[in-house]
Amino acid sequence: MAEPAPLSPLAPATFPDLPLIDGVTFAAAAAGVKYHGRGDVMLAVLRPGTSIAGVFTRSSTRSAPVLDCQAKLGGEASGGAAFLVNSGNANAFTGRHGTASVRAITQAVSAVASVPENRVFTASTGVIGEPLAHDRIIDVLDDLSAAQDSDKIKDAALAIMTTDTFPKGAFAQTEIDGTTVSIAGIAKGSGMIAPDMATMLVYIFTDALVDQAALQSLVSTLNETTFNCITVDSDTSTSDSLLVAATGASGADATKSESFRAALREVMLRLAHQVVRDGEGATKFVEIKVTGATSDAEAKTHALSVANSPLVKTAIAGEDANWGRVVMAIGKSGAAADRDKLSIRFGDVLVAESGWVSPGYSEDDAAAHMKGQNLSIAVDVGLGTGTATVWTCDLSHGYISINADYRS
Amino acid sequence: MAEPAPLSPLAPATFPDLPLIDGVTFAAAAAGVKYHGRGDVMLAVLRPGTSIAGVFTRSSTRSAPVLDCQAKLGGEASGGAAFLVNSGNANAFTGRHGTASVRAITQAVSAVASVPENRVFTASTGVIGEPLAHDRIIDVLDDLSAAQDSDKIKDAALAIMTTDTFPKGAFAQTEIDGTTVSIAGIAKGSGMIAPDMATMLVYIFTDALVDQAALQSLVSTLNETTFNCITVDSDTSTSDSLLVAATGASGADATKSESFRAALREVMLRLAHQVVRDGEGATKFVEIKVTGATSDAEAKTHALSVANSPLVKTAIAGEDANWGRVVMAIGKSGAAADRDKLSIRFGDVLVAESGWVSPGYSEDDAAAHMKGQNLSIAVDVGLGTGTATVWTCDLSHGYISINADYRS
Repeated sequence: MAEPAPLSPLAPATFPDLPLIDGVTFAAAAAGVKYHGRGDVMLAVLRPGTSIAGVFTRSSTRSAPVLDCQAKLGGEASGGAAFLVNSGNANAFTGRHGTASVRAITQAVSAVASVPENRVFTASTGVIGEPLAHDRIIDVLDDLSAAQDSDKIKDAALAIMTTDTFPKGAFAQTEIDGTTVSIAGIAKGSGMIAPDMATMLVYIFTDALVDQAALQSLVSTLNETTFNCITVDSDTSTSDSLLVAATGASGADATKSESFRAALREVMLRLAHQVVRDGEGATKFVEIKVTGATSDAEAKTHALSVANSPLVKTAIAGEDANWGRVVMAIGKSGAAADRDKLSIRFGDVLVAESGWVSPGYSEDDAAAHMKGQNLSIAVDVGLGTGTATVWTCDLSHGYISINADYRS
Repeated sequence: MAEPAPLSPLAPATFPDLPLIDGVTFAAAAAGVKYHGRGDVMLAVLRPGTSIAGVFTRSSTRSAPVLDCQAKLGGEASGGAAFLVNSGNANAFTGRHGTASVRAITQAVSAVASVPENRVFTASTGVIGEPLAHDRIIDVLDDLSAAQDSDKIKDAALAIMTTDTFPKGAFAQTEIDGTTVSIAGIAKGSGMIAPDMATMLVYIFTDALVDQAALQSLVSTLNETTFNCITVDSDTSTSDSLLVAATGASGADATKSESFRAALREVMLRLAHQVVRDGEGATKFVEIKVTGATSDAEAKTHALSVANSPLVKTAIAGEDANWGRVVMAIGKSGAAADRDKLSIRFGDVLVAESGWVSPGYSEDDAAAHMKGQNLSIAVDVGLGTGTATVWTCDLSHGYISINADYRS
């Protein structure tokens, strides 16, 4: 890996003070999988009865750990469970060696954490196509087990970082029938980020009681408007994983709670935004909202076409209110549009309407908006009621610098 | 426009010595549409009876000239015809003003060149969303008409350039029933290039005799494996136009000639490759060949997913034989793939096979290939007989520099 990139200018001021989640403990260790002098493995241990839901990359070349997790989801929740994640190596496109590494790790975690092997969920993130030195991970499992503590979630967030410039965390609390329920999540991801499932590693924990099937349904639904609505570079990882664990330790049944649903969505959205804010080379955080499409799906197609356009993203990096490139991106998306019904806003500035620049448009006003760190582009297609909002960042020299010499 | 970019390192040594095409004349002029001190308008005048075929962008926000050309294609070939092209302004997303500009220009060209107005085909390339100063173009039409000459095709190629760093030309000659038939073409394009129709401006002229319908069918077919198989940045212009004019002046009927078909494809392919070689910021010309897919269409989906991946393209810029990113791009493409049947070659070097790095793989050999200017990546999916070849360039700091301050 090249020199670490400097802290993203879009990073939050601090890592949030996450609430302790009853029923889960954490520890991190420096196993030297690839990085040296930093934590690179984290183990989370969950109490018996924890419901676990997940969403994974749809890549046809997904990694061995992803395939293993997918096979295990929906299993019996009576035993305990564990999440083991390493950074530095993705264990992807590693053939049967990859499968053997996953097996070796899950067996060892099962033994040390006293949980069934079919309840051990692993993930690996980093370089693709190199064998995973799983012995180095197994060597630190005793330490990880001995160090388990409910207050070490930040150590876990730090250990799963790769090209991330800051650890990502978010939380929410809500009340169900008089009982406070807490949700705390961590994430990693800054490149190879595009919406086709979780698009990064995300682990969310709650002490709410939610049955397995209901949790899976809720997580899958919320994923569509959160993690599946962000993109850094249109590339999709072979390792993307989102796992949500509900320990039930609070005793509060959240299965049908609207406030729990809202709180979980909030945590997912905040983590998704943090991933964009740590986009490789990002200097701008951009919300793209499309309204007036013929359906929500068409709106999302338009929004992602704008969000993934290299020409739109480089214009944003250059603080150029180049709305012509937004017109181009809408035009190429494949979703329905009528040039003469389009309107476009940059922030509050109405830039274009009725297929032409707006009569009141002031380039100075639009240029002033583009100088901010948090930008918004709104497109009304003028054809129907479909809407979608996605989030992305600009495409800058930083992205090239990070990715032209990541591996060598 | 920012300072002109330096000549692409992938540029051909010289502009080819294009053969004169009987039945067409050219001239260029400096109208000052946007650029100063250079030709920015070209007029080509075609003799009566010329067949004209065309392919255009499918963008739903396509420009006024594109809409006008599409409406005129297939018209009566008895009168003469003319092509008028300006650079500096795309006359796209200019509403009814754009339509009025096209009308004003086509009427004036019709008068000065003595051709029917419905046989005047225009194109505009440059900035989107700004009104076209069509009066400046009309002001130079008398000069353009007076200067018409069959040997001025290079002037025409120069006048249609925008961010291009070199003019693009190609030719081929073949024999039909003892008569030599010539084909000469010019093109412009270096950014906003992705395969969804012509993806740039291209004008090809031949003295062969081909009837209108046959020419259109041939051009549409050949376009699919030439201009529709290149991509610089996955963005699709609102102005992409390809026009092919067969003057028939040689008297040789090429309607069913296989050698003419091959010669025309060769000219189209050479121009397509030149556009990639002038890709904004390009330092590497890359051929991506996919075999073994379940269909040709699936192969093209895979190939374009690799060609458009920012992570693959930045790795190439960094001369990094990062085949893991190729695996990622195949995995995300949506076309069928089986990780354990994939094989990947960089040049002649077998990098990966059977879902794992090849036993004989030498990173040094692959790295040596990556240092060249002309690279090849071959992926065999191992599932069927579908094949596709596409061409792209790397994504470098140069692309960001050019596009982060193009307009301002």
